[in-house]
Formats: sequence, C-alpha cells, structure tokens
Amino acid sequence: MGENKQNDLLNQEKIISLLEQQQATKFRNVFLVLHVYEQAQIFIELTKKQRARVYRYLTPEELGATFNAIEEEPERVISYFDEMTPNYAAAVITQMYTDNAVDILAFAEKKNLANYLRLMPREKSDEIKEMLHYEDKTAGSIMATELVKIVGNQTARSGLHVLKKEAKEAETIYYAYVIDDDEKLIGVVTLRQLLISDDDALIRDIMNDQVKSVKVDEDQEDVAKTIRDYNFLAIPVTDYDNKLIGIITVDDIIDVIDEESAEDYSGLAGVDIEDSPDDPFKAAKKRLPWLVTLLFLGMSTATLISHYEQLVSEASILAVFISSITGTAGNAGTQSLAVAVRKLAYKDDDTKTIMRTIFTEAITGLVIGLVTGLTIFVIVGLWKNNFILGLVIGLAMMCAIIVANLAGSLIPIVMDKLGFDPAVASGPFISTLSDLTSVLIYFNIAGLFLSFITGTGN
Amino acid sequence: MGENKQNDLLNQEKIISLLEQQQATKFRNVFLVLHVYEQAQIFIELTKKQRARVYRYLTPEELGATFNAIEEEPERVISYFDEMTPNYAAAVITQMYTDNAVDILAFAEKKNLANYLRLMPREKSDEIKEMLHYEDKTAGSIMATELVKIVGNQTARSGLHVLKKEAKEAETIYYAYVIDDDEKLIGVVTLRQLLISDDDALIRDIMNDQVKSVKVDEDQEDVAKTIRDYNFLAIPVTDYDNKLIGIITVDDIIDVIDEESAEDYSGLAGVDIEDSPDDPFKAAKKRLPWLVTLLFLGMSTATLISHYEQLVSEASILAVFISSITGTAGNAGTQSLAVAVRKLAYKDDDTKTIMRTIFTEAITGLVIGLVTGLTIFVIVGLWKNNFILGLVIGLAMMCAIIVANLAGSLIPIVMDKLGFDPAVASGPFISTLSDLTSVLIYFNIAGLFLSFITGTGN
Repeated sequence: MGENKQNDLLNQEKIISLLEQQQATKFRNVFLVLHVYEQAQIFIELTKKQRARVYRYLTPEELGATFNAIEEEPERVISYFDEMTPNYAAAVITQMYTDNAVDILAFAEKKNLANYLRLMPREKSDEIKEMLHYEDKTAGSIMATELVKIVGNQTARSGLHVLKKEAKEAETIYYAYVIDDDEKLIGVVTLRQLLISDDDALIRDIMNDQVKSVKVDEDQEDVAKTIRDYNFLAIPVTDYDNKLIGIITVDDIIDVIDEESAEDYSGLAGVDIEDSPDDPFKAAKKRLPWLVTLLFLGMSTATLISHYEQLVSEASILAVFISSITGTAGNAGTQSLAVAVRKLAYKDDDTKTIMRTIFTEAITGLVIGLVTGLTIFVIVGLWKNNFILGLVIGLAMMCAIIVANLAGSLIPIVMDKLGFDPAVASGPFISTLSDLTSVLIYFNIAGLFLSFITGTGN
Repeated sequence: MGENKQNDLLNQEKIISLLEQQQATKFRNVFLVLHVYEQAQIFIELTKKQRARVYRYLTPEELGATFNAIEEEPERVISYFDEMTPNYAAAVITQMYTDNAVDILAFAEKKNLANYLRLMPREKSDEIKEMLHYEDKTAGSIMATELVKIVGNQTARSGLHVLKKEAKEAETIYYAYVIDDDEKLIGVVTLRQLLISDDDALIRDIMNDQVKSVKVDEDQEDVAKTIRDYNFLAIPVTDYDNKLIGIITVDDIIDVIDEESAEDYSGLAGVDIEDSPDDPFKAAKKRLPWLVTLLFLGMSTATLISHYEQLVSEASILAVFISSITGTAGNAGTQSLAVAVRKLAYKDDDTKTIMRTIFTEAITGLVIGLVTGLTIFVIVGLWKNNFILGLVIGLAMMCAIIVANLAGSLIPIVMDKLGFDPAVASGPFISTLSDLTSVLIYFNIAGLFLSFITGTGN
C-alpha cells in the first residue's frame, strides 16, 4: 500500500500544479484517467480557486462521476454545489446516481433545492422528489432508480441488447429484472445466464422466478442481511403493489454494514466514533453531554453511599471493596449487554429468541456470580482473616452481577420493544446504572452482618 | 420478512418429509429450485439419517454448490464430510470454490485431509495445498483461484467468448484480467466494457491498465478497505512477481468486514460476541476468565484503598465519592479507547496520525476533566456545604479523567506497535485499570486536604 500511496500523492501534486498553471487539457488527461475514487480524494483537497477551475474544465457528466465517489459530509458537498453556477450544479446532480444525489440534496437549503430541481430534466427531478420522501435508513432511502427492466417474451439476444444499451446509465447491468405489463416484478436474469443461454431462448424460460426482493420501507439492516446471506450483487426494491421501483447494490450495502457496526460500537462506548473531530474542543463538546448525564446518574450512587455513611464510619473496611464490586458487576453487565445487542441485531427478534436470551443471561449471571463471588470470598477471607466479611463481599458481588447481567440483556430488549435503537443502551450507561444497584445490594447485605464485621474485623 | 420466513419453514417441512419417504426425484425437484443459501439453511437442520439420503440423491456438483453457501463452524462441516464415502466427499470438495474448501479443510484431521487430496483431480489438490499455506487473515487465505484470464491481443469478441466459456466455473465473470506472457497482471476489462466495445477492438486498447491489485500476504482488512473505497465487485491478487494468482470477491469482503467489526465490538465489551453460546454454562465459561482476571486487577484497587483505610475512617465522607470518580473516569477512558481503536483501524497508522491522536485525547481529557471537575465541585460544595471537599473531589475527578483518557488512547497504540490487536485492550480492562489510578489520585489529593475536610465537613 505504501507504493500506491506515494503514487496518489504524486498524482495529487501534478494535478494541483496543472490547475495552478491553468492547463485545462493536460489536467483533463491526467485527472480523467484516475479511478473516480481517486479523483474524489484529490478533489476534496483542492482550494476554492482550484475547484472553480475544475468546474470550468470538466463536463457535468465527468464531475458527476467524481461526485458519485465522494465520501464527504453532505453539508460539505452542498457547499461545492453552491460554488457552481446553478445550471452547472443542476447538470452535475442530474449526472449523479439518484441515490447519491438524494443523500446530498436532503441537506440542501429549501430554496437552493427547489432551484436545482427546476433546472433539471423533469424525469430526474421527479425521481429525486420521490426519493426525498423515503424515510432515512429504509430500502427506499438507499436504492438507485437506474436499473435494467426487461419483459418475459423477449429473447436472450434482445435482453442482452437492452443490457448493452443501458450499460452506460444503469448502476449495475449484471442483473436484469423481468416485469409484467403492470410493471410488477416477476423474475430476474443475470447477465451470466443471458451470456450462456441460447440466443433465441425466451427470457421467461431462463429467468429465475423465485426472485428475492425487498419492500421500499424495509429497514436497511434487513436488506443488508439478505444481500449478505444470499451473496447477491444487488437486490430489487418493490412498492406495496409489487411494482419494481429501484435497486440496491452491494457497494451501498457495505456502507450500511459499516454504518451499523460503527453505530453499535459507538453505542457500546458511549461516543460517536464515526464523527470524532480532531479538534479536542469539538471532541470534548461531543462527549461531555453523555459524561455529565452519567455523572448525575452516578451522583445517585453517591447519595446512596452517603445514606450509609454511618455504616462506613463504623466499618471503614467496607469502603475498600466498593470499587471491586461495582467494577466486576459493571464488567459483567457490559458483556451481557454486548451479547444481547448483537443477538437482537442479527437474529430474529421473535419472542422465543428474546425469552431465550433473557433466560441464558440470567443463568449465565448466576454461574458467573457464583464463581466470582466464591473467588472473592476466599481472597477476602484469607487476606483480612475474616470470612464473615468475605461472605458479605462474595454475596454482594454475586447478587450485583446477577442484577447487572439481567439489566444488560433486559434494557436493550425493552428499548428495542419501545422502538428505540437498543445500541443506545451504552456500556457506560449500564455500568453506571449497575454501580447504583451494586452499592444498594452491598450496603444492605453489609448492614445485616455489621456486628460480625466490626466484631471480628481489624 | 415474516412471509418469507413462513415460506422457508414450509419448504423445510416438505423437504424433510420427502426425505423421510425416500422420494428422491420429488426431493430433487423441490430442493434444487431453492437458492443455495436456503438449501444450506435446510441442510444443517437435517438428522444424520436424512443427510445420508441427501448424499445419495444429490450429485457432488449439486451438494458442492450447497456447501459453498453453508455458514457453519468448519468443524461441523468436516463432520459432514466424514459421514460421506471418501470418494463422494472428495468430489464434493472438488466442486466447491477453492477458498471455501480451504476454509473448511484447514480444520480437517491430517489423515483425512491427505485422503481427500489424494482422491481429487491433481490440479484442484495442488491449488488447495498451495492455499492451505497462506496465513490466516491475509489476501491469500480468502482469495478464490477460479478467475478469468485473457490476453491483450485478443479481440473484445474473443474475450467475451472466453467469459462465456468460463461462466460456469469462475467465481465472477464481471471482470476479466489481462495478463502478459509471464502471467503478470497488466490490466482489467469489465464485462460491461466488453459488451459496449466494438467486437473487433483489441483488449489492450479497451482495458484499464491502471488495474488495482493486492499482494497475497496483504492484511484482509486492507483488502476490504480498498474494495470498499473503490466500490469494486472483485480485486485481483498477485504474488511478489506480480503474477496473477487469485481473486477476492465482494461477498468475501462483506464477511471480512463483519468479522472485523465483531472483533472490535467484542474487544470493547470484553466478550466474544461472535461465539456466545446459548448454553449458559458454556457462556459463563467463556466470559469468566476475563472477568476473574479483571477481578484480580480490581483487587489491587482494593489493596490501595485498604492502604488508605485510616483516612476513610477519619473522613468517611470520602467513601461516598469513590464510585463517582472511578465511574466517570472509566466512562471517559472507554470513550477515548473506542475512538483510538477505530482511528488505528481505519486511518493510516503513521507517526503523524498517532501523535495527533494522542495530542487530541490529552487535550480532550483536559477539557472534559475541567468541565466535569467543575460540575462536581459545585454539586458537592452545595450538597455537603463544603467547598474544600468539593475542591478535592473536583480536582481528583479532573486528574483521574486526564489519566484515563491518555491511557485509553495510549494503550491501544502501544499494543498496536507491539504487534497485538489494539482491540484487545478492552473497555472493561481500561475501566478496571482506570479504577486503580483514579483511587490513587483521589486519596493522595484527599490526604493533602484532610484537615480541611474533617474540620469543616459533616
């Protein structure tokens, strides 16, 4: 990769210097031979003045291809459009795949959006308007509308001809979808099948009529699961009349998988890792709300301990084990949370799975609680030569872990049922909550045995 | 999806009953029309007796296709091969894609493996032997060897002809790779380009000679990054002479992305979420080693507090805030850890990025520490009417957070530099470690102010 990177840097320098020298033709020769991803990587490094020249040197079709591969915040891409003449911007947007254009236009100012749509061909603006209505994170919001449709009584030869004709426009030409007279999806043929079939074979005879499709409002995570399980390169999207309205390709699905896994990870850590600024003040600003919220939740633990301050002053040894108990229960709860969140995300969330998850976590918590409780009982008993104290700590740890494990699995499940993303029940939240229950359990058990602890303890 | 699932269950029941009735032909009619993923899903639900019938009713080619789509533990798939006659097993393996076969055979007993290899066509067994040598998680270990090679002085028509001929065997026919006389990779043409080119155009004129490839020992995560960035459907794999030896397709990359993200997530939670058994005893057995290790690490925190027990008995109010300080510092450390692990995984880990990450986290920790420290200073000061106590708690929290933030970013970086997976530095580990440093900081600061706390406190 080192070598590739060096090349990329060389290309970038060359292109910038050609822009500075206003060498339009040479710039085009060097720039357009690059992969669109590389074009996009270089474009986002340019200054405003250099970008202005790019808008003059490239056709809307060429810049549209580059913009299809841009991986910037939509707000930033919008600002590029604002730099262009409205006509040129509208033409660039027209040349982009509809799904990519919509991802960006969703963040445009109303006035500018209306302007761009007005300057576009009617067909494209209608498609964009339609797609802007689909809810975020559904199949509709990530589908492209550029796809290849054929009919059943065409021959393979004619199907191949359609594919060739659409090859420049369509997002993928490796699947052609077969529709009936009502635009309803009835089958699929792969380009591979078309190639190996007899030229005169009828599409309806070679097509696969067991075509898998997704509904337009289906969750993007479910779409990702289907594409991954079936190893599809694309899947068709239908509306509720089974009319074919779009296609989702595997490259969009990779973005979905990345996004969802980053969300799960962010949830567990209690910080948005996808968008952690390099500016420490901005980073702090993003992390503080959650930390301060948890600090206040943690204050209820402090209040609780404060309530037992008399107990602590009588047996200060109790203070020694607060962090062991809260820490271990918090760790166990985090494990249980992570397992439950993943099971909810990747298995079917029917009642049976849920009940089994809760049951598994409850028994797992019991076993883990028993083993760690017994361990700390022995350690404390030997260390402090006080097995009553050991019993208190061991019992408290066991109960605290059982509660933390149950909370770790129940809270994401309840959040899921209430319609929230279960990943929001973050690790820090579970461990802060578990601090509270652990302390409550600990001091209640300790209170019962107080005379034994102070009687024989140090 | 509910409807689909119902269908799947109906199919499964039908197929099982046909197997029970020994209806070979009807079984074939129903089974073979399903997608291979669905076939595999049903196959793994069968009993041993039912599977034995499947081996009689299906050709090795048909079962090989099913096995390509199986998503079971390799050990389990090996046990299926052991049920078959060695000849049939070898034939099934021969029909599978080499990468899939190797994934499974890597877990076969030496004796059985030798036996299967002996019964296979020489060419296939050589390929498998070759691939068994590639290190886990490199490009070589996930590549397929079934790919389409063409040469530069062929015409588009003849290239298309090659693709048609290979369409049944190759893992993808959407890219044809162009090689020179020494089998070195010099270009790529997509099937799309072949279709829209003039029939008599020479491959060397229409091919893209800026072909991206990966080296056979490249990390699978880097391969995934390239395929994702460039939106490729596949990428060629070359050896160190630049000879074309394999291909990695996007569906394999989705598995890699899933695997790596599950690893990151598991690391953060301190539990292997990919392999969390439903049996609570097995689940507990998997989680306990880490929990007990952390429990012992936590005991050093207890020992430390024990060292300050005199201080606690003089000012029991100190016990009240232990969990607030350790909890908040642990939460901040977990955030910092998550951000650092992701930056290491997804950005280039050059010295500049690393220094910037550490610098960002240090300053972020300072800002977060200042804000939360100030918050708790005010809360405690007002609550306990003791601003000296508030100052102690606030100062301790600030210092504890700065240390936790630094540890959260430094530890994964150091582990990465030492050649360990940075994701192993889990959230629970960081928060348990942070408990120790937080308590040390807390009691040292408290010791300095002891007379003020007890003098004016409760």
